[in-house]
Amino acid sequence: MELKIKFLKWSTGLLGAMLNKKTAEKLGIHATNRISLKTISRHPKEVFTFVNTLDGLVKENEILVSEETKEWLGLENGQIVDVNLALNPESLFYIKKKLNKKELSQKEINKIMEDIVNNSLSEAEIALFISAMYENGASFKETVFLINSILNSGNKLNLRSKIIADKHSVGGIPGNRTTPLVVSICAAAGLIMPKSSSRAITSAAGTADTIETLAKVEFSLDELKKIVQKTGACMVWGGSLGIVPADEKLIRVEKMLGIDPKSQLLASIMSKKLAFGSTHILIDIPYGKGAKVSKQKALGLKKEFEKLGRHFHKKIMVVLTDGSQPIGNGIGPGLEINDVLSIFNQEPQRPIDLETKSIFLAGKLLELTKKAKSGKGIKMAREILLSGKAYSKFLEIIKAQQGKVGNVKVSKIKHSILANKTGTVSEIGNKKINELAKVAGAPGNKGSGVYLHAHVSERVKKGHPVLTIYAESKNRLKDAVNFCKKVNPIKIK
Amino acid sequence: MELKIKFLKWSTGLLGAMLNKKTAEKLGIHATNRISLKTISRHPKEVFTFVNTLDGLVKENEILVSEETKEWLGLENGQIVDVNLALNPESLFYIKKKLNKKELSQKEINKIMEDIVNNSLSEAEIALFISAMYENGASFKETVFLINSILNSGNKLNLRSKIIADKHSVGGIPGNRTTPLVVSICAAAGLIMPKSSSRAITSAAGTADTIETLAKVEFSLDELKKIVQKTGACMVWGGSLGIVPADEKLIRVEKMLGIDPKSQLLASIMSKKLAFGSTHILIDIPYGKGAKVSKQKALGLKKEFEKLGRHFHKKIMVVLTDGSQPIGNGIGPGLEINDVLSIFNQEPQRPIDLETKSIFLAGKLLELTKKAKSGKGIKMAREILLSGKAYSKFLEIIKAQQGKVGNVKVSKIKHSILANKTGTVSEIGNKKINELAKVAGAPGNKGSGVYLHAHVSERVKKGHPVLTIYAESKNRLKDAVNFCKKVNPIKIK
Repeated sequence: MELKIKFLKWSTGLLGAMLNKKTAEKLGIHATNRISLKTISRHPKEVFTFVNTLDGLVKENEILVSEETKEWLGLENGQIVDVNLALNPESLFYIKKKLNKKELSQKEINKIMEDIVNNSLSEAEIALFISAMYENGASFKETVFLINSILNSGNKLNLRSKIIADKHSVGGIPGNRTTPLVVSICAAAGLIMPKSSSRAITSAAGTADTIETLAKVEFSLDELKKIVQKTGACMVWGGSLGIVPADEKLIRVEKMLGIDPKSQLLASIMSKKLAFGSTHILIDIPYGKGAKVSKQKALGLKKEFEKLGRHFHKKIMVVLTDGSQPIGNGIGPGLEINDVLSIFNQEPQRPIDLETKSIFLAGKLLELTKKAKSGKGIKMAREILLSGKAYSKFLEIIKAQQGKVGNVKVSKIKHSILANKTGTVSEIGNKKINELAKVAGAPGNKGSGVYLHAHVSERVKKGHPVLTIYAESKNRLKDAVNFCKKVNPIKIK
Repeated sequence: MELKIKFLKWSTGLLGAMLNKKTAEKLGIHATNRISLKTISRHPKEVFTFVNTLDGLVKENEILVSEETKEWLGLENGQIVDVNLALNPESLFYIKKKLNKKELSQKEINKIMEDIVNNSLSEAEIALFISAMYENGASFKETVFLINSILNSGNKLNLRSKIIADKHSVGGIPGNRTTPLVVSICAAAGLIMPKSSSRAITSAAGTADTIETLAKVEFSLDELKKIVQKTGACMVWGGSLGIVPADEKLIRVEKMLGIDPKSQLLASIMSKKLAFGSTHILIDIPYGKGAKVSKQKALGLKKEFEKLGRHFHKKIMVVLTDGSQPIGNGIGPGLEINDVLSIFNQEPQRPIDLETKSIFLAGKLLELTKKAKSGKGIKMAREILLSGKAYSKFLEIIKAQQGKVGNVKVSKIKHSILANKTGTVSEIGNKKINELAKVAGAPGNKGSGVYLHAHVSERVKKGHPVLTIYAESKNRLKDAVNFCKKVNPIKIK
């Protein structure tokens, strides 16, 4: 049925559409049906979406679309589109096959990714897929299929360099903002290092959220290429590049559910590295109590990354690091970038744990790419940091990303939690600190988060602050203080 | 934040709300957050929902709510409500616990059901719960917890009768509309038999959809009580009674996903029987190729139902029946009720398979309740049917449900599929027939569905019709004919 497009500044964060009730009836559409919406042209574009009905505002010959649908199809007000009832997608059948513990083929995984990208699957159905992968795991073959499939869902970067370096930290540790330091050191050493990062998935800040406090992080692939050609590196958000649209959609639902299956984790990382043409990849897996993985699981992931490296003919080095407490003092975008700047500037209150780890990772990557001789990478990385060359490179990249290093504002709505006794910090709960920063407003509000005044094994005095909460609003501060009292994230012995 | 309620005849099939973008920002609400919406009164009611933004039509001091939200909270235009950011519900934590193969406690299952009922969980999160139950199964204890929890989420029927009979067929077999016949026969024999049925879950028609072609099926518990006190029985839709709201919501998502975990199946049936105060319950489990369960699984279910019967002190009899092909000729609400009426009226073209099965089930229930001596139930049931007493009782119930037995209209948009050779029907695919009827428009459109001209082992002649498709619209007829050619649901040898 041909209908006229109507807009209403309606935003859902997802493709959406509304019909007049009578139109829905004519099309034979009931509650759980979906529609296909197709442009009329020589090269028609089509999307699938569930529909609501809205009478009065939407006439019988009209279809109201959300801003997301408008953008996706490039629609104009009054444009005529072809709307039809859509049947259950074939991919739902494959999702159930996986739920029934059967292995999926490349073709079947392709179809699932295709239907995720073109919106044929609802969030509940994507949740079913994530849950099936979480519960039943994926074979090595399936993981490779998933990587191919995600890779083929999007665009690729072509830099024509023999060596393209990359590093990736498996998330889950609050703070841990090593990327700006590692990228700046390695690029200063002459490596080509186009770095795309994610926004927070289940954490209080992703690297992209953190860099965004100083510079733009959303670019097209062409713009990104120019930045890398100019500076040797970049630190951008992967989501705006259209390189792995299937992965972006999966991550959106994973974030909502707060689960992250292993196969998805491997595929998400590898597909992005392959799309960027990376040849030398350092993977950092923090492990331990409160980290995403135990030491045993970290060793398992290490093996799988190495196997994937051999399969795709890439040099992959995996390092296991201590993930039992937050790294750095600040948790939340603004607080984290302040940590990074204090290290570049070698300020006395800088977080030494974050500095040490960043130098270690940069050193390893310099060795993997043979910029440094074996065993000499860490020394080289430290020299580049202390010489100021790394900071110059950082400023250069930030400038190329249309940014400027200035004072980053953290929220003025804050409250410090004081030590209830004198003693030694025995434990800082990663998940609790992470949740606390989120309750306070991170990562949506860049100035919100948590600042740690002490780390594990450090002495604290009764009545002195152990952490400070920076909140988005007074309401959120109240919630955060209550939450902090309830979960008690820092233990003192 | 206090906001003014606004309506727009907006219907989503679910609770929903929209805010002005600025209001969302002030509340600190981002894409995947949810809000709580609370009425301001001495006994406030609260719901949780995800939000969209809609500028222009929704002012900063307003909140637009869907018709479902309006009804749920009984809201009025212009009413002031309190809107706040809601945190992730505690129940999501328990769902992940189950996903990680850990047993849930009564308290944890209660919390999940509570959050399903008050809309704190999104469809994707409910999908995660269903998938966890599907993948990891439930212990006997968990199944009992689930039954208690669902039972306590709603109202109960109190009939004060010593014997309250019920029968339930585990779904999945197209046609199979035994309920109107069994209820009429048993009530004619003097049994008290309040029967609530579901609408179609994954099938082309539920008993409620079928009865609705003749009479009302949505009543309050009080109205239902009056119908049963008058006629001894009823045949209503369970969803309108508010007896198991948690189950209704679960079923909605199960229907969308097309999966139905065993624990959910047991809990859904048992909780409804307990809410109705049933004392003697006959469970029919069709098994075989194309049925929901194999013979082995049917035997497993039988044991679990019997164990649940002992736990809850109810007389439960489980019978296993042939589920390898559709029962009756019509599939789809209107076509199925025509089958039932032809049996009451003993018309020559009536489906003998449906008649035989209904008499068998009624006979077993008469024996279980001791209305008939052991071994004499089937004879008694047949006599009641042939005497016309069952039909009189059926008319009485339909009248009490504000209905009338008349000509049921089936769609005029139809097409017959002809046999491509002379031979014997060797197979009729349940799932294919079911899907075919759904593509044609069942159960949403009551006059749509499939009529079978032959069953397994019957002879058909080349060029004679094997099935007729009745469709809601020409578009759907085209889709259905194509689908039928593709899947070929009837095999001839």
